[in-house]
Amino acid sequence: MDEFSLIKQYFAVKNSNPTDDSVKLGIGDDSAIIKPGSGEELLFTTDTLINAVHFPGQTAARAIGYKSLAVNLSDIAAMAGTARWFTLALSLPEPDHNWLKEFADGLFELANMFDVQLVGGDTTRGPLSITISVIGTVTENMGIRRSTAKVGDRVFITGEPGLAKLGLSTVKNEIELPEKEKKRCVEKLNYPQPRLKEGAFLRDYASSMIDVSDGLSADLAHIVEASDCSAVLLSQVLAEFIPESLGIDEKNALDAVLYGGDDYELLFTVPADKCEEMKRAWPASLSNLSCIGAITAGEGVYLQERTGESRKLTAAGYNHFHG
Amino acid sequence: MDEFSLIKQYFAVKNSNPTDDSVKLGIGDDSAIIKPGSGEELLFTTDTLINAVHFPGQTAARAIGYKSLAVNLSDIAAMAGTARWFTLALSLPEPDHNWLKEFADGLFELANMFDVQLVGGDTTRGPLSITISVIGTVTENMGIRRSTAKVGDRVFITGEPGLAKLGLSTVKNEIELPEKEKKRCVEKLNYPQPRLKEGAFLRDYASSMIDVSDGLSADLAHIVEASDCSAVLLSQVLAEFIPESLGIDEKNALDAVLYGGDDYELLFTVPADKCEEMKRAWPASLSNLSCIGAITAGEGVYLQERTGESRKLTAAGYNHFHG
Repeated sequence: MDEFSLIKQYFAVKNSNPTDDSVKLGIGDDSAIIKPGSGEELLFTTDTLINAVHFPGQTAARAIGYKSLAVNLSDIAAMAGTARWFTLALSLPEPDHNWLKEFADGLFELANMFDVQLVGGDTTRGPLSITISVIGTVTENMGIRRSTAKVGDRVFITGEPGLAKLGLSTVKNEIELPEKEKKRCVEKLNYPQPRLKEGAFLRDYASSMIDVSDGLSADLAHIVEASDCSAVLLSQVLAEFIPESLGIDEKNALDAVLYGGDDYELLFTVPADKCEEMKRAWPASLSNLSCIGAITAGEGVYLQERTGESRKLTAAGYNHFHG
Repeated sequence: MDEFSLIKQYFAVKNSNPTDDSVKLGIGDDSAIIKPGSGEELLFTTDTLINAVHFPGQTAARAIGYKSLAVNLSDIAAMAGTARWFTLALSLPEPDHNWLKEFADGLFELANMFDVQLVGGDTTRGPLSITISVIGTVTENMGIRRSTAKVGDRVFITGEPGLAKLGLSTVKNEIELPEKEKKRCVEKLNYPQPRLKEGAFLRDYASSMIDVSDGLSADLAHIVEASDCSAVLLSQVLAEFIPESLGIDEKNALDAVLYGGDDYELLFTVPADKCEEMKRAWPASLSNLSCIGAITAGEGVYLQERTGESRKLTAAGYNHFHG
């Protein structure tokens, strides 16, 4: 099978019934042609997943396909945007039909869930690596940045940070979890839910936003650095993200939540006087929502212990070229 | 040096003086925010270059940076579009300062030449590979596709196809060329000129268009397949692309032109009654322009020899998964 048949078989056909008419020309030409709506701004982002760096070597192809798109959609969610179109650059050692079928299944499961259309790509022979680029849209001036947190804002996070890290630790046989909990944590690791609906809801409330990929501590550090302020997190609230049924002690639970990364939850700030309204309006169909701290004057990210003492956190999130 | 300083040092600063105000938020957030013009359609494309697959292992970093963007701009040129914004996904084994400086120099040399802005990206540790995604714009319904060639149209190509292949052959020590010719061919291989100006000019003339990456024969096969027609190329005209001073015999010269690939020239069709007008209007500042054949009824690509005999060409252009 040659490169062109491969693209057609696994990727082109799935997109034969686009649900909107924005794509005037999809896969198969030198570039796609897209007609955005008037008055919309574009969001443009790209993320790469590399075998054995971003996912363990034995990860299922379906999970790789799903997650490659999920981490990119998460970036659009973090701007409060709507994900619309994407390209896929897939490098793989050889065209393995089963692998490609599973990969495409995972990819399109998520793409169809959020109505995001594959419009182009490139397949090459090389070490397994996936780069996806997504274009999203957002109403003019409604994109939420990481640089606009204000002193006094409260810090919130969606979902359950820390579980993905515990999933990774079980996959690597570093820890052992009860079977049911293990399954849940590995599911969080392999099939992160891009919080697009939550991000869109937050257009009316969040003052700043980022998605947690490097780790809660490191990503909050990005917000406070860009916004020229400080933040304090409540140790007790964070520890509760890790259910007691997992049998993880508090120190390790906190480490997973603060430094684990790979959560793809939305981390955002809300002005204090909007918090109650937001919590009341938060639809039950969305992820959990937790207030985990507040924005203060100064710099850096602090953790306040049960005792009331605070310590400054180092930005020990995952960093590809940390010396 | 960590990942974030690395991005800032080599990539963020170069874009500090954008020449237009379309980029409302560039590098450094979850995604870029872009404001396209009204009435514009978007062109969206992505291409990957992998070490030792798309360029020989010893290729200069400056050439890799330049060419990674060039091959993507070439796809926008082939749609008759204007290249506007791009993201860079760079995977490299370790952060080598000299390499990164040279790479960025090559990348921005070309980006500045065509006023294309880097708005985001991702750096990861892994085998050397570069994926660039470009968004271009084109006036509504003015994008030129590969599926719209008509019987009777003439086939044209820009520049000098075949020289890049000879450059590759000299780099691999498969052939020897006189020093001056060698330099010219290696320059064509490493620093292909995206034909954006030529593509834009052709909006008024071309009936179909593609850029030559896989090889003239294979890429013309894409046009005739998508357009449901056939094409005949003139052997004599093609052989003339390889100057006699290179000392290449006609058989090898033809092979380089037909199957070499990596040319990034525009291959396009023009209705017969528009050819003279186009040739007269073609600005002297643009690349060379050559009529190399015609579109006929049927299927496949044929080569007509000096003798008048025709033979059907196999699509032997470069194919990443050719069995």
